[in-house]
Amino acid sequence: MPVLKYYYDLLSQPSRALYIFLKLTQIPFEAKPVSLRKGEHRSDEFKEQLNRFQKVPFIHHGDFKLAESTAILGYLSREFRHLIDDHWYPENSQARAKVDEYLGWHPLNTRMKCALYFWHKWLIPIMTESEPNERKVAAQESEMVTCLDEIETLWLSQGHKYLTGDQISVADIFAACEMEQPRIAGYDVTEGRPLIKTWFERVKQDCHPFYNEAHAIVDKIASKTKAKL
Amino acid sequence: MPVLKYYYDLLSQPSRALYIFLKLTQIPFEAKPVSLRKGEHRSDEFKEQLNRFQKVPFIHHGDFKLAESTAILGYLSREFRHLIDDHWYPENSQARAKVDEYLGWHPLNTRMKCALYFWHKWLIPIMTESEPNERKVAAQESEMVTCLDEIETLWLSQGHKYLTGDQISVADIFAACEMEQPRIAGYDVTEGRPLIKTWFERVKQDCHPFYNEAHAIVDKIASKTKAKL
Repeated sequence: MPVLKYYYDLLSQPSRALYIFLKLTQIPFEAKPVSLRKGEHRSDEFKEQLNRFQKVPFIHHGDFKLAESTAILGYLSREFRHLIDDHWYPENSQARAKVDEYLGWHPLNTRMKCALYFWHKWLIPIMTESEPNERKVAAQESEMVTCLDEIETLWLSQGHKYLTGDQISVADIFAACEMEQPRIAGYDVTEGRPLIKTWFERVKQDCHPFYNEAHAIVDKIASKTKAKL
Repeated sequence: MPVLKYYYDLLSQPSRALYIFLKLTQIPFEAKPVSLRKGEHRSDEFKEQLNRFQKVPFIHHGDFKLAESTAILGYLSREFRHLIDDHWYPENSQARAKVDEYLGWHPLNTRMKCALYFWHKWLIPIMTESEPNERKVAAQESEMVTCLDEIETLWLSQGHKYLTGDQISVADIFAACEMEQPRIAGYDVTEGRPLIKTWFERVKQDCHPFYNEAHAIVDKIASKTKAKL
């Protein structure tokens, strides 16, 4: 089997999620870090040779190129099934469907809402060297708050220890990695949300030590933000 | 096997996509139309008994309840494999991954961009009985145009007849159903985009007569919009 090359930047939420998944399952891969901050993904060469979408994460597996984190997850689950403990992405049809239900809900909810808050509060001001647009930040914060409340009411109130059942799955990893991003901008998603707080601790513990390893850069930036506040 | 109950509203893009898929594959189902316009999804009873997300589409399969169109697609592909021609959602790992790559790209691109244009141009003005906010409409149109151009440059320029290969798949159905929504608001995605135009005709033909059947209500509303312009 050809070497799996994993291209990622640990500042990208889905990059962290797949990184943690690869490490936990011990799927062998060659790490290919890409620096988004240095704009490495913007060159024509990157577009032609590496990934036409000019984003991370993506993989090369021999001649096969693949982008989009959920597509990569599905591909890895087939190609490396023997290495993956079933609870991460269950073979049972209904259990798999429940994980996929969260992964289907995720992009336009957890991912979009947490990312847009992070952009308006932190990323855009840094990139444009200007103050945050407080009206936009407030609007995005309100949408994020609704989404985080829904994570408690629609997902974590279903009587399970994790988002989609009593065992941890990739759904939990994908969700947690997105919910770390607002922390860079000074917002703690666990504050005032006891269900998220308990769940978050559980996920971090189950993914130890790779969760912390993947989030070292987030921790570093978040502590700088905190010092400023 | 229990009866598959399919809850949908043909005004919802993913509802149409799954409806066409169910009809093409002849997966037996009990049709359970839900009227979003009448707010049938907003009642407490709906939330408790039918779908806690208060959206369509979703399924009940015996005691099993499932929402999110891509999760439903995956579930149907396992439960009714014997009825589904392989090209719709291939078993081959790399071919499947390519369809999933589009389905992963879809929510924050085709789906979000076409839907937000439709909302600001058509839906919000109707619901609030006011004129469209032209600044927002222009901003959303610009984002949608970028996305439609990317469907040509990133997907349809890869040398295949369809989005992810030379045979039609669910990726094409999901994309086409989203790209119909702006038509309700008077925007034709095929105009000035020859690759989309040819592809769109191919998809409609391959999904005949169910494509037209699913879009009868869109056609009706779109012709009223056209008459007004």
